[in-house]
Amino acid sequence: MSSPSTFIDALQERSREWIRVLSQPNPAYKPQTTVRAYTYDTVDVRGDNDLDWRSSSRSAEDKTPAWLLRLQRRSAITRTIIFVLSSEWSFLTVLGFLSAALFLTTEIAVDNILGGRLWILSALPNLSFLRLIVWTLYSLFFSIIARFCVEYISPFAAGSGIPEMKSILSGLKLKGYLSFDNLIAKIVGNVVAYCSDLSIGREGPYIMICGILANVLLKLDIFYRIRSDNSSKFQMLSAACAGGIATVFGSPVGGVLFSIEVTSTYYLIQNLTKSFLCAFCAAFFTSYIGNHGLLTPFVTHFDSKTFSNGKILSFIMLGVVCGVLGAFFVVAQDYVSKMRKKYFWLSKDRYKQVCIISIISSIFTYASFMPLHEGQFYTIRSMFSDTKLTEWERPSVYFNLIYFIIFKFFLTVVSIGLPVPCGLFVPVFVMGSAIGRLWGEVLSDLFPDMLITPGGFAVVGAAAMSAGTTRALSTCVIIFELTGQLVYMFPVLISVIVATAVGNLLSPSVYDKILESKGLPFLPPLGHRALRKSGRDVMNNSIHCVSRETTYKDLSLLLKRSSFQYFPVIDHPGNMLLIGEIDRSYLRKILDDRERDYLSQSGNRQRLVDVMNHYDKGLPASPDMGSDVTGSPMEEFFSTRALIELQRPHFDPSPFQLVDKTPLTKIHFMFSMLGITHVWCTHKAKLAGLITRKEFMKKCWELNEQRNATED
Amino acid sequence: MSSPSTFIDALQERSREWIRVLSQPNPAYKPQTTVRAYTYDTVDVRGDNDLDWRSSSRSAEDKTPAWLLRLQRRSAITRTIIFVLSSEWSFLTVLGFLSAALFLTTEIAVDNILGGRLWILSALPNLSFLRLIVWTLYSLFFSIIARFCVEYISPFAAGSGIPEMKSILSGLKLKGYLSFDNLIAKIVGNVVAYCSDLSIGREGPYIMICGILANVLLKLDIFYRIRSDNSSKFQMLSAACAGGIATVFGSPVGGVLFSIEVTSTYYLIQNLTKSFLCAFCAAFFTSYIGNHGLLTPFVTHFDSKTFSNGKILSFIMLGVVCGVLGAFFVVAQDYVSKMRKKYFWLSKDRYKQVCIISIISSIFTYASFMPLHEGQFYTIRSMFSDTKLTEWERPSVYFNLIYFIIFKFFLTVVSIGLPVPCGLFVPVFVMGSAIGRLWGEVLSDLFPDMLITPGGFAVVGAAAMSAGTTRALSTCVIIFELTGQLVYMFPVLISVIVATAVGNLLSPSVYDKILESKGLPFLPPLGHRALRKSGRDVMNNSIHCVSRETTYKDLSLLLKRSSFQYFPVIDHPGNMLLIGEIDRSYLRKILDDRERDYLSQSGNRQRLVDVMNHYDKGLPASPDMGSDVTGSPMEEFFSTRALIELQRPHFDPSPFQLVDKTPLTKIHFMFSMLGITHVWCTHKAKLAGLITRKEFMKKCWELNEQRNATED
Repeated sequence: MSSPSTFIDALQERSREWIRVLSQPNPAYKPQTTVRAYTYDTVDVRGDNDLDWRSSSRSAEDKTPAWLLRLQRRSAITRTIIFVLSSEWSFLTVLGFLSAALFLTTEIAVDNILGGRLWILSALPNLSFLRLIVWTLYSLFFSIIARFCVEYISPFAAGSGIPEMKSILSGLKLKGYLSFDNLIAKIVGNVVAYCSDLSIGREGPYIMICGILANVLLKLDIFYRIRSDNSSKFQMLSAACAGGIATVFGSPVGGVLFSIEVTSTYYLIQNLTKSFLCAFCAAFFTSYIGNHGLLTPFVTHFDSKTFSNGKILSFIMLGVVCGVLGAFFVVAQDYVSKMRKKYFWLSKDRYKQVCIISIISSIFTYASFMPLHEGQFYTIRSMFSDTKLTEWERPSVYFNLIYFIIFKFFLTVVSIGLPVPCGLFVPVFVMGSAIGRLWGEVLSDLFPDMLITPGGFAVVGAAAMSAGTTRALSTCVIIFELTGQLVYMFPVLISVIVATAVGNLLSPSVYDKILESKGLPFLPPLGHRALRKSGRDVMNNSIHCVSRETTYKDLSLLLKRSSFQYFPVIDHPGNMLLIGEIDRSYLRKILDDRERDYLSQSGNRQRLVDVMNHYDKGLPASPDMGSDVTGSPMEEFFSTRALIELQRPHFDPSPFQLVDKTPLTKIHFMFSMLGITHVWCTHKAKLAGLITRKEFMKKCWELNEQRNATED
Repeated sequence: MSSPSTFIDALQERSREWIRVLSQPNPAYKPQTTVRAYTYDTVDVRGDNDLDWRSSSRSAEDKTPAWLLRLQRRSAITRTIIFVLSSEWSFLTVLGFLSAALFLTTEIAVDNILGGRLWILSALPNLSFLRLIVWTLYSLFFSIIARFCVEYISPFAAGSGIPEMKSILSGLKLKGYLSFDNLIAKIVGNVVAYCSDLSIGREGPYIMICGILANVLLKLDIFYRIRSDNSSKFQMLSAACAGGIATVFGSPVGGVLFSIEVTSTYYLIQNLTKSFLCAFCAAFFTSYIGNHGLLTPFVTHFDSKTFSNGKILSFIMLGVVCGVLGAFFVVAQDYVSKMRKKYFWLSKDRYKQVCIISIISSIFTYASFMPLHEGQFYTIRSMFSDTKLTEWERPSVYFNLIYFIIFKFFLTVVSIGLPVPCGLFVPVFVMGSAIGRLWGEVLSDLFPDMLITPGGFAVVGAAAMSAGTTRALSTCVIIFELTGQLVYMFPVLISVIVATAVGNLLSPSVYDKILESKGLPFLPPLGHRALRKSGRDVMNNSIHCVSRETTYKDLSLLLKRSSFQYFPVIDHPGNMLLIGEIDRSYLRKILDDRERDYLSQSGNRQRLVDVMNHYDKGLPASPDMGSDVTGSPMEEFFSTRALIELQRPHFDPSPFQLVDKTPLTKIHFMFSMLGITHVWCTHKAKLAGLITRKEFMKKCWELNEQRNATED
């Protein structure tokens, strides 16, 4: 059966082309001179509108799977069990459990890989140079595997994952990002990249991993109820982000808040319970399976005390320093990523980059005076300790800390843009703890009377630096949960707030900057240049309408010229009165039906083949051929009015619409609040244009860039 | 000059009436048979639309005050200083400081009042009966003052304040609630009510107090920049709520989260920094001025430990119990408030209610076996202690705890509906700690092997009960900050989540229930009954339009018939094409101008006086008089087309509009997300109706009630 069906397919494909060649514009169709493409650089557009998620009215109507239906019919008890199992709560519990289990598994993998290296080193003769080479090669090997995962399993696994989740949660479908391939690439890639001594963290990729886990889990039959409700689906994704952070840090409350801050613009409070549940389950199971009581990796035991004015001032200064450094970090990593794009030799061979940076990192890690080879967590613990930094005293604590901060800064800036799965929170956190410790050591040497605990300053510095980079205030909650103490609540809060404020004055957050430089679709805040603009300035006025007058021939041309998912339905080409919008897929279907009808009539297929042969021979459309075709039954067959049914679900009689004079601020507000993908513009009730979310985003970026250009 | 002006006023007023009597409907005006009032029970409607706040385009354009302008002109430095001082950050710092200072002042007042009672008692002869009477009279006295504050200073001071803030932050202006009078009434009323032994708390009123403080502070000239931006104004109000909680509990992070959860439906993440700053400043200054280091009123010192399966199960059970009791509390207090409305003798004399309950509370507090007279905080500390409850052992700990829980429940339910400023968080928290303690004591007696710390169960119970009543998950953060410990993180989280979930299954949150029973405007979630409804079912189709054809006579009638703030402008009465909306105040103005013109012409005033005298004599409109008037120059003068200028700011060419077939879910979504006050409905581009936020809210409640009625 396959060959005839492909033949028919081919025929249909060609018949369509053929019809298009013959088609003439007609008043109902109104093609305009400018036919713009709706694509946006790197992202697939077609599927975009699946995610008009907040208006659940048109969500895909998922049927109850057959086996579930059969089970449900058995008894009230099975029905109840299925109801409970298929609920959001059960989904989140399972998700939390899986996230915890997966994380613990990867932990074991990391331990084994790093343990393996130590074992090899211990087996080697006691030659530092040889050991350094083996150490470096070991790291190099794993960094190459990490790059390999990204190149051969899924290209979407590169980078942090947080900007991508922000984009996805803002209502856009990024194809491939939530696929199973990406899950594998992220998991394996992140483990090996983490083991390769690159200055990277695990929280960013793990947020993404949890997001994908949720997406994969949703494909199970049992969760059909969640799957069929787009809004619920998005809530699950958002909760998964919280679960991801909670797993990695063991901080359920901080995880929820951090995920909200870095992925949302507006947050639906109702969803908080779900995020909390997921985060709690993730952290709880991590603790329960891993057999630790509380997940406080960096437990501190500082005394509770009041803080003198001098100390408060020094905490504020630390906040300012961290804010400035955080902003500098954001700008520096953006500069590096621009350099990567600009210089061909950097952008072409990405293995080379990974290898070079891995080698430098390994040497730095191994051949330092400090015990950096014990890992980042060990460093954090040293910084947070309330004893002297004995391991860092050779040649001097100051020298070592400064050396560490500078090198860490440089390595992190170049590492987080590498095409491997890598987060940036932990390296920044380590850097911050070193900065805080340095500040504390300096102060305690300068003012021995102040009774300063440098470890406490390290805690404050870690929180402030993380906040200065990510602009997430929840870092303070995370640090409380990481250290298990609240005595530094006020210093942490004040420096976090100061660092965030100072950072915000100087640059956007690191995630927003990556989002921007990656060209991911995201609605930026409106600059003042946009204040005087209105919908008319941004709308696309080359729209293709459907009306009662539309023929099958028009439909065919319509589908070819515009790639947009919805078409406006107008009352009559004369009055251009918008009466609703219709799905692309439905129009495609009725056109296909019509073509099948035509081909099923005897003789028609032969006739079409003849015409096609004529064209295939490269002959120009001879006038007699043309006239023959134009007046043919085929022409007539496709020139009749299309039988378009204006009914739900493929027809929406109430799409969002605006007057074309609506100010841009109002449109921006609607897009960001309602999460809609497009809005129709009318002028005196006549359909005048279309504003899609993507074009609008592009326009916003353009306007912001113009502003920067004129200001510079 | 005053008497002629009043004469003209009187003339104008009468001339308007007179014109209305003569007016005939004309096609441009289209009055309909049903003229509905736009008022909503208790709330003033006119000013409502000031708060179309999120669309800042039409916000009141506040001018820079003159003295500031003069100062700004002096030098760049003064300009910078003024810029910094007038910023949101400075505002929030000042607000935090004021909140802290005010709170500490009221604390001193409370301490003095309660200390005074002890002093009086100590001076009395040692007769328990006499002491009880003095104790009760003392409480009674202050409860009467509290009632007095509400009755004579501001009636809006009654109740918690959280539901009111929720309503205000949802975009409605509740007149009088944010006034200075109410500030005084709330502050004084709450202090004296708290001292009167009623089972109430301070956090609810304090949220409101901070909100009013913010509103009053905004009236200072220096903050003109914030005042002139409605959106910024609302962010400040929202931050003030966080500050209020942070002050009372000393929990900055918990305060922010709690305020978000109980007052918002959707939260703008961008605002988080501001809320954090305000909450931090409030908590910090409270600590700093009050000279305590950390604000952990109920500091605990439990050991860090792992929790066995049995314990985890018992925490879950505690969560279930607290969830059920929380829901029961919500239902009970609603029942009590309904009873109050129903029985006249209860609703009429509200002093009597306050007195009776105050007397019962006092007796309960004084004449118990337990040291309840030490105050609620003392009770919480006893519950949280890791030692035995020695003070509660007469006659038995079980008996005392059960007796306390039952009485506290009853007293809190009847107290929080009293017309005095009263919060409910602390009493519920106390009740929860007792429930948890009871549960812990029972378990430790039943399973001595489990090594149970009843104090830990009290902490968990307090958090769970608060969450079960308020449905705020942030109670877990508040409890961490209150106890200064994180070792009970998992138990607290699990029981809070369980209690919230169980509570949500059984009833809405206590704040939502109060909101509902008070009839405050608030957009409820849509029930399934509304799913099949569309805009057509809820819109008001008796709309009064303005067009180019509209005469002054029409305008006069228009303004009389409709009290709504905006009028639709249509292209032509024939096509009913909506081209914008126009401000009521502008129409009023041009009509007044026209009338002034008429009266300024010689002879017209005398003519009007004649006509009025004719009417004043009670004579019917004689035909010749009528014909005289109708054909008079006056009639002509007012029958000309009004000169309406369609320009900003009084004219908006792009009001929000919808197709009348738009499903109710979508409209609900728009109202809750965009915070708009009204939306115009069109049918095939013809203006068909108007949906105001208030009428929509009412309809939603009606639909929900219908659902409940049919389900019952």
